[in-house]
Amino acid sequence: MPQSAYQDLTSHFARIGRIRNALGILGWDKDVMMPSGAADSRADSIATLSVLCHDMLTDPRVGDLLDRAQAPAGTWEAANLHEMRRAWLHAASVPAELVEASSRAASRCEVAWRTARRDGDFAALLPLLSDVLERTRELAIVKGAALGLAPYDALLDQYDPGTRRADIDPVFAELRRDLPGLIAEAQAHQATLPPVEMPAGPFPVAGQETLGRRIMTALGFDMARGRLDVSIHPFCGGAEDDARITTRYDDADFLPALMGVVHETGHALYEQGLPAQWRTLPVGQSRGMSLHESQSLLMEMQIARSRPFIDWIAPLLRETFGAAKTDPGWSADALYRTVTQVRPGFIRVDADEITYPAHVLVRYELETALIDGTLPLRDLPDAFNAGIRDLLGLEVPNDRLGCLQDIHWPSGAWGYFPTYTLGAILAAQFRQAAFDADPAIAQGIARGDFAPLLAWLRTHVHGQASRLSTAGIVAAATGAPPSTRAYRAHLRERYCGTGPH
Amino acid sequence: MPQSAYQDLTSHFARIGRIRNALGILGWDKDVMMPSGAADSRADSIATLSVLCHDMLTDPRVGDLLDRAQAPAGTWEAANLHEMRRAWLHAASVPAELVEASSRAASRCEVAWRTARRDGDFAALLPLLSDVLERTRELAIVKGAALGLAPYDALLDQYDPGTRRADIDPVFAELRRDLPGLIAEAQAHQATLPPVEMPAGPFPVAGQETLGRRIMTALGFDMARGRLDVSIHPFCGGAEDDARITTRYDDADFLPALMGVVHETGHALYEQGLPAQWRTLPVGQSRGMSLHESQSLLMEMQIARSRPFIDWIAPLLRETFGAAKTDPGWSADALYRTVTQVRPGFIRVDADEITYPAHVLVRYELETALIDGTLPLRDLPDAFNAGIRDLLGLEVPNDRLGCLQDIHWPSGAWGYFPTYTLGAILAAQFRQAAFDADPAIAQGIARGDFAPLLAWLRTHVHGQASRLSTAGIVAAATGAPPSTRAYRAHLRERYCGTGPH
Repeated sequence: MPQSAYQDLTSHFARIGRIRNALGILGWDKDVMMPSGAADSRADSIATLSVLCHDMLTDPRVGDLLDRAQAPAGTWEAANLHEMRRAWLHAASVPAELVEASSRAASRCEVAWRTARRDGDFAALLPLLSDVLERTRELAIVKGAALGLAPYDALLDQYDPGTRRADIDPVFAELRRDLPGLIAEAQAHQATLPPVEMPAGPFPVAGQETLGRRIMTALGFDMARGRLDVSIHPFCGGAEDDARITTRYDDADFLPALMGVVHETGHALYEQGLPAQWRTLPVGQSRGMSLHESQSLLMEMQIARSRPFIDWIAPLLRETFGAAKTDPGWSADALYRTVTQVRPGFIRVDADEITYPAHVLVRYELETALIDGTLPLRDLPDAFNAGIRDLLGLEVPNDRLGCLQDIHWPSGAWGYFPTYTLGAILAAQFRQAAFDADPAIAQGIARGDFAPLLAWLRTHVHGQASRLSTAGIVAAATGAPPSTRAYRAHLRERYCGTGPH
Repeated sequence: MPQSAYQDLTSHFARIGRIRNALGILGWDKDVMMPSGAADSRADSIATLSVLCHDMLTDPRVGDLLDRAQAPAGTWEAANLHEMRRAWLHAASVPAELVEASSRAASRCEVAWRTARRDGDFAALLPLLSDVLERTRELAIVKGAALGLAPYDALLDQYDPGTRRADIDPVFAELRRDLPGLIAEAQAHQATLPPVEMPAGPFPVAGQETLGRRIMTALGFDMARGRLDVSIHPFCGGAEDDARITTRYDDADFLPALMGVVHETGHALYEQGLPAQWRTLPVGQSRGMSLHESQSLLMEMQIARSRPFIDWIAPLLRETFGAAKTDPGWSADALYRTVTQVRPGFIRVDADEITYPAHVLVRYELETALIDGTLPLRDLPDAFNAGIRDLLGLEVPNDRLGCLQDIHWPSGAWGYFPTYTLGAILAAQFRQAAFDADPAIAQGIARGDFAPLLAWLRTHVHGQASRLSTAGIVAAATGAPPSTRAYRAHLRERYCGTGPH
């Protein structure tokens, strides 16, 4: 019996998936293991395999097979076909010359950005960033035409399939309205609390690592299918059955590595929980960046910065670093106060939970206006600073601390920023639904028992892979469409003294 | 101007080379970093990329281009064309079904071998090993027909391009004649020496590693283009500009890791010394297994087990492990006695320098007879044991310590064994030529100055890559064809008390 078009497609996409797994390991190795002298050679290998994947994806036979392939509606097979078509449309809609021009513009701009950021010199970056923006707009237009989407939605769809500006705008408008008040309220509440008291270091790296592994394992990370290592910029990477997270240690402060490990473990648990029978195929992959970020933020923000979690780890921390229970900085009260401290600042990646969305709102508003063409790029610094002033009440002193701080725009990642806050919103919604569904989930945390939580996530999120849209997964898991209700309640409870955690 | 056939070929082979670099990192990661649960997924990725390389190599256009491509005789370009043709002939001469049948037979036999070796049960392995042998003979015949070679030479050519049985037979016949007498003489000489006195451990792994890195660096290993890590079976792997060696540590004995690091550093220096302008292309690769092994054995056997080297590292060892100079086991005399100890035994990989070739001679004679069909496979154990009896005077008590000890035959690596001893012979010849060429080379060793030695190797061996045949490189470097003269002199001097080192 001849193979069906569907079977031909799955064989072809599985082959692409196996090369992507190779790329995952090569990318991880580049950031964690590779000696500096191998950078050029590695870039060549990665480029060769990336071009190969792109060529396989845009092979003319793929379009023919997609036209002929069939699968019963509502099945995983149908979702698999849908994802194959989506991947093909994204790749095949862009002429090779535009792919190359975009990639070259971004590479050049990214290099120049490192200097421009250091010098706070936006004018120096403007021509190259303008080039990136123009190529990105072209890309957005041709992809949008192929996908039947507005240009910005086509960019967004690369990172967060199915999410549209029309979904984001009302959510972010609501946040923009409420956030300044919420932050003010949080700061007022914080003023009534005792001052933050940090335990005194140094905190040996070996102890931080051992504790990190203990917490990873408690959260459900499978060490036989992943690793923990060190890199300059923490990330979760690797390949299927091989989720590799990284962190960096500071022996003067154990919290960044600790919370970083929890955050990346959230990402890795998602990857480790994808359904084995669909691995290597498009439908078996994680759904998108919002959902991915929801899993890391659920673990870091919803769980690890909650009081029950701090109650569990406070004694482990004292044991790890040989501190006395009576040492005031090591009490669960003091640690909880530290991990929920509110401190508006200029740098997004250093922001606390409640001021973080302000950074995202500013970037989202600016990048949509830049793609629409309603904001001239030369006006970006003023507009950026105005946004920070409006939302955080801070005067940005220079572009290094302002619009030059992130690599996203110079590197061509437009449409990415909103997924951070969408993820934070979904994290709260998932946490609430999980707690409502099974009382053992909340009860387990203070004992370090996360098995009930993981079981719920496995069934309702991880195991769904890309079978449904993000909104579809959220609705099936929580019984409601994506909403900021749980997120806003969570922020008020934690930061405004209105609730138990 | 259209690209020439030669340029088309170099582009195509460079692309293959970049995928091979990716495979090098994936293979290293598999043995050093990969969590156990990723084994299947990784095997899939490696198989996909290997098939891809094979498909690219056997692409019908390659044959056409090779027919049309031209390069002036005697140039690197001509050698590059020659190597491209060789790679293409090896790959394209074998029908895909035979590649697959051989690979499957070897995979099955390798798995069964692990059990059969443990149980010393040759009869249990016989049917599967017979299958591997039959497939290997078929492969040898079809490759031989394409390459114009006898079957065994075609196998040998896979590992050691250009080396023929007619080159090996007289060399090995000479060794077979002299070796038993030489070993007896060495044992008699050893009986006149004081007993071996091993320093008492434990030897902390951190100290062993620090010292290993120090010695690697002294030998000329470029840490910006390579790594040192730990694996169960030490090896040198990685990719271009990224030579990665591994070792394993035993805190009861520092010598295996120390000598292992030196050995693998020899391999890595060869890789790091290949000419940058030909990297990724066939002519820019290392020449073959004999020459590769000559570089590791030159460093380990010719240099690191010599008296001047021991004089240099004895104080470093005492410093590393906090030993007193007066401690008798730590004197240079005692250490030299230890690293040159002769102990005939059953296991090839544990053999000392002078008994090692006996293990190789036995295997070479048996594998040529098996490929020729003059030895029935069922008679292998008796023939193996007879060989060990003849050359080492030992009675092999079971097949675990006899013909089942090595993975080579079960895994399909026939024609590989002789390269170990060919490498040892060339190592001695290179060392002698280097010492003769520049007095600073020998003088530097006792001071830990290996720069003059490395400079000679860079010019005469590493930098030649695959521009000439192995014999051509040896002749150009040493002024003489490959010969056992230096090797036999070296063994007599070191082990029979006839010389200075």
